[in-house]
Amino acid sequence: MTDNNLNDASQTKNIVWHSASVDRELRIAKQGHKSAILWFTGLSGSGKSTLANAVNLKLFDLGCSSFVLDGDNIRHGLCKDLGFSDQDREENIRRISEVAKLFVESGLITLTAFVSPFKSDRNTARAIVKPGDFIEIYCSASLETCENRDVKGLYAKAREGKILDFTGISSPYESPDNPEIVIDSSKETVEESVNVVMQYLQSQQVINLKT
Amino acid sequence: MTDNNLNDASQTKNIVWHSASVDRELRIAKQGHKSAILWFTGLSGSGKSTLANAVNLKLFDLGCSSFVLDGDNIRHGLCKDLGFSDQDREENIRRISEVAKLFVESGLITLTAFVSPFKSDRNTARAIVKPGDFIEIYCSASLETCENRDVKGLYAKAREGKILDFTGISSPYESPDNPEIVIDSSKETVEESVNVVMQYLQSQQVINLKT
Repeated sequence: MTDNNLNDASQTKNIVWHSASVDRELRIAKQGHKSAILWFTGLSGSGKSTLANAVNLKLFDLGCSSFVLDGDNIRHGLCKDLGFSDQDREENIRRISEVAKLFVESGLITLTAFVSPFKSDRNTARAIVKPGDFIEIYCSASLETCENRDVKGLYAKAREGKILDFTGISSPYESPDNPEIVIDSSKETVEESVNVVMQYLQSQQVINLKT
Repeated sequence: MTDNNLNDASQTKNIVWHSASVDRELRIAKQGHKSAILWFTGLSGSGKSTLANAVNLKLFDLGCSSFVLDGDNIRHGLCKDLGFSDQDREENIRRISEVAKLFVESGLITLTAFVSPFKSDRNTARAIVKPGDFIEIYCSASLETCENRDVKGLYAKAREGKILDFTGISSPYESPDNPEIVIDSSKETVEESVNVVMQYLQSQQVINLKT
């Protein structure tokens, strides 16, 4: 530090404010598992949020650090300024992708549970992280199944025109071409689905379950 | 699940997709320290990022989970669509606040290192989390000190008019009225400053250092 204009106190102490940082590799080495994004996509009612939370709980029980991003904690906060037009959906997913990337950098297994209907948006999310960091989980329950369930009554409202731009009814859903995992909640239980996801994470060495 | 239209497979298995979740309290109980936002504010060159990273490293060495949000990982990602007008600065800080809140929910001690010049924005960030979750750390080095350092050459460019809306030169900085911690990097070394922050975290029982 050669600046002559620094005050006496700092000169006396010869203060050097250099940088130190903790990176993803250091965190991973310490915690014993890798980080990644588990990106759940599918129609409303296809089981994304339920499955993401069940996987999250399983990971927690195994001592892994993980977190779920979903409508509950994103739409009322970070993205509360956004609606459901195509443009706003795109920006919504862009922000979620960037936040998920930050969480992955912090060492967490990050689960996102959003309809995320457009291929291009999901591919953008995949592209901003390293190969292998983005694990697309397609919750493939059919429109008929999801609409018949209609747990939140949203499909009925969409059919009545009370909700606009509703995916599957008045806005398109583009299925993934090559998702890493496919789960059909009308054919598999939550427990079975959790096992499928955990086995995939084990096969990719994201987690290391003792055998 | 009483819906008659569900397919045979799901009826056979009596599928119930109920919710399970891991909340902040569960995480905190497991990891042995609380989560909080350490919000560093001050002029460019006042030592925010350096100190945040040094505290982060100290926390890591102690086995705590923590993460730094700063210009490097925010401005090129989540907020790459924003400039430096008052309106964009406000939206920038709003998004950072919401992301910090998510990190706190995930159990991490979250350090944010941004100029964040406006009181109202910092108070908004404080208001969206619980009392005690927001710890404002004012890096109080004077404009003269920061400009004399001018590590990145930004003050010179701002004086030449090559950077517009530069805090301290062509845009105001509003000092905190009641910050939890004040650090003057022209009077304290990084090590001393880290200790001040750690002692505060200990006093608030965010961390629990063995004595």
